[in-house]
Amino acid sequence: MFKSIDELRGICAELPDGDAASAAAVAQREAQLTKPPGSLGRLEQLVAWLARWQRRNPPRLQQVDILVFAGNHGVTARGVSAYPPAVTAQMVANFSAGGAAINQLARHAGATLRVVPLSLDQPTADFMVAPAMRESEFLAAVASGYQAISPTADLICLGEMGIGNTTAAAALAAALFGGGGARWAGRGTGVDEGGLARKRGVIDAALARHAAVLNDPLRVAAALGGRELAAILGATIAARRQNIPVVLDGFVSTAAAAPLKKLRADGLDHAVAGHLSAEAGHRALVDELGLAPLLQLDMRLGEASGAAVAVSLMRAALACHTGMATFGEAGVSDKS
Amino acid sequence: MFKSIDELRGICAELPDGDAASAAAVAQREAQLTKPPGSLGRLEQLVAWLARWQRRNPPRLQQVDILVFAGNHGVTARGVSAYPPAVTAQMVANFSAGGAAINQLARHAGATLRVVPLSLDQPTADFMVAPAMRESEFLAAVASGYQAISPTADLICLGEMGIGNTTAAAALAAALFGGGGARWAGRGTGVDEGGLARKRGVIDAALARHAAVLNDPLRVAAALGGRELAAILGATIAARRQNIPVVLDGFVSTAAAAPLKKLRADGLDHAVAGHLSAEAGHRALVDELGLAPLLQLDMRLGEASGAAVAVSLMRAALACHTGMATFGEAGVSDKS
Repeated sequence: MFKSIDELRGICAELPDGDAASAAAVAQREAQLTKPPGSLGRLEQLVAWLARWQRRNPPRLQQVDILVFAGNHGVTARGVSAYPPAVTAQMVANFSAGGAAINQLARHAGATLRVVPLSLDQPTADFMVAPAMRESEFLAAVASGYQAISPTADLICLGEMGIGNTTAAAALAAALFGGGGARWAGRGTGVDEGGLARKRGVIDAALARHAAVLNDPLRVAAALGGRELAAILGATIAARRQNIPVVLDGFVSTAAAAPLKKLRADGLDHAVAGHLSAEAGHRALVDELGLAPLLQLDMRLGEASGAAVAVSLMRAALACHTGMATFGEAGVSDKS
Repeated sequence: MFKSIDELRGICAELPDGDAASAAAVAQREAQLTKPPGSLGRLEQLVAWLARWQRRNPPRLQQVDILVFAGNHGVTARGVSAYPPAVTAQMVANFSAGGAAINQLARHAGATLRVVPLSLDQPTADFMVAPAMRESEFLAAVASGYQAISPTADLICLGEMGIGNTTAAAALAAALFGGGGARWAGRGTGVDEGGLARKRGVIDAALARHAAVLNDPLRVAAALGGRELAAILGATIAARRQNIPVVLDGFVSTAAAAPLKKLRADGLDHAVAGHLSAEAGHRALVDELGLAPLLQLDMRLGEASGAAVAVSLMRAALACHTGMATFGEAGVSDKS
């Protein structure tokens, strides 16, 4: 559906803004509810944020969709993961059978889970020697994510599964924000000290190999990312165009969406970080992006698991906003 | 039901321990589930903690009770709150009518809410001039909390409502952990700069007034606390005796339970801090108590609101623990 990276860049340049009036209406009601002003903290801000990006007052959370994109990575040949690449497809089967963490968390969040495997039998190229994806492959993966968005969704959580993809995400973050492998490589699924050293080396070598495209966020995503990361980027763009707020998950999910922030300063204003992952680079990444994670529970699973847990906070916030009495209704004296 | 503070002290000395075997059984199963070991972070630890203190494997969350104790405070005469004392009873009426934040949050958490007003027409004494409660009053309030615990509960959230009670909580924390009004006084419901200065002064004066009991945590609770704080202490003790884990709420709820930690180093091991409140003294208090709050959302409402939101995390954790497939069941390759 996208003919070129430049066409995609043009779409990113024309994304709509949120609706300030809906956000202001939420804030006005919050001030009348039976609590000291601002005492529900980020819960109040979340409701205003939902209203702004849904362009609706009050916002709603009737249809919450969790999308998990899966991909395989040629760079696994470099010994950067604690698990074999076959686990990606095995986990997709586990998602289908309902046995993974995200199945339980989606049910708990009152959300629909959809898993989108992306050419699992065709890993991306090893980006030590070539771009991970050709332009057409990258655009097809972006389109997969773009088209996976349901226009009727009220909120979308974006997660991933892909053995090797914390290396891709770290390379992408390093290319966008600098600092090299030492800053961005982490333990992923639990790689040992040797694996971590290999990860750092792979990232630094990849940055040198692809030096020519490092100033272009979309070409960086094609050269150093992966199909599931490209799909998350596409889904993030589609959600913005369709007035659907987004919950990003951990390190990989956040890195995947990061090129949009590099393309425009407000590119991720319709997204929140569901949690701060225990994966080493996530703190630096959310700081670079100006995101304040909602949860910090030392999770590092991916699969949209942290984003799914964060949905509960939004439901709690919205329940207060819509269900509470005002000072006037309750006959409670306001501040003296 | 308690004849003397010394009898209560004896009960605190004989509290049971948790069950290490149930916690170990949880950890053993977690290691077999289809995720990298430890990748659900605190969610995994929460399940083991529930199992330990419920003495049950797997733990369960069928009956979650939220208890909100309400009391009034003579110290409000000192101009330490932004709201008039009449608001305590007005908010209790609001709880009954279903219009408060905690009503919405209890429903969201799948919890039962019970509100226990404690002699609202008889504020505690102004502790600038006398102990807040006589021994008999204190013990009656402790008993109210102790007896409010349902023995069939799987988890209990403890919250409070009481205009003026952040001053009482700060005085209690100052008495137990040192540092005076400057360390512990905060804005509460939103007091202005003058009110904050008065709060600090009241606390320092109260510490001087009650210097003779500062080495006795229970007498401190009687002299500087309040009925709703004493009830939270009683409920925390009763929960421990009945193998029911506890979720504390914010600054007041945590300060109320703190004497038990001073009486015995493991006194709050069956409790978690549901969240880190935005109230100024809460960070120092949880640090003193060795508690790691589950959430940090800049909430500062009380009413058990932060504890109620944290219940969602426990339900998510338990859903993963009981619902996920093992590596063997799912046919997923384990770590290479």
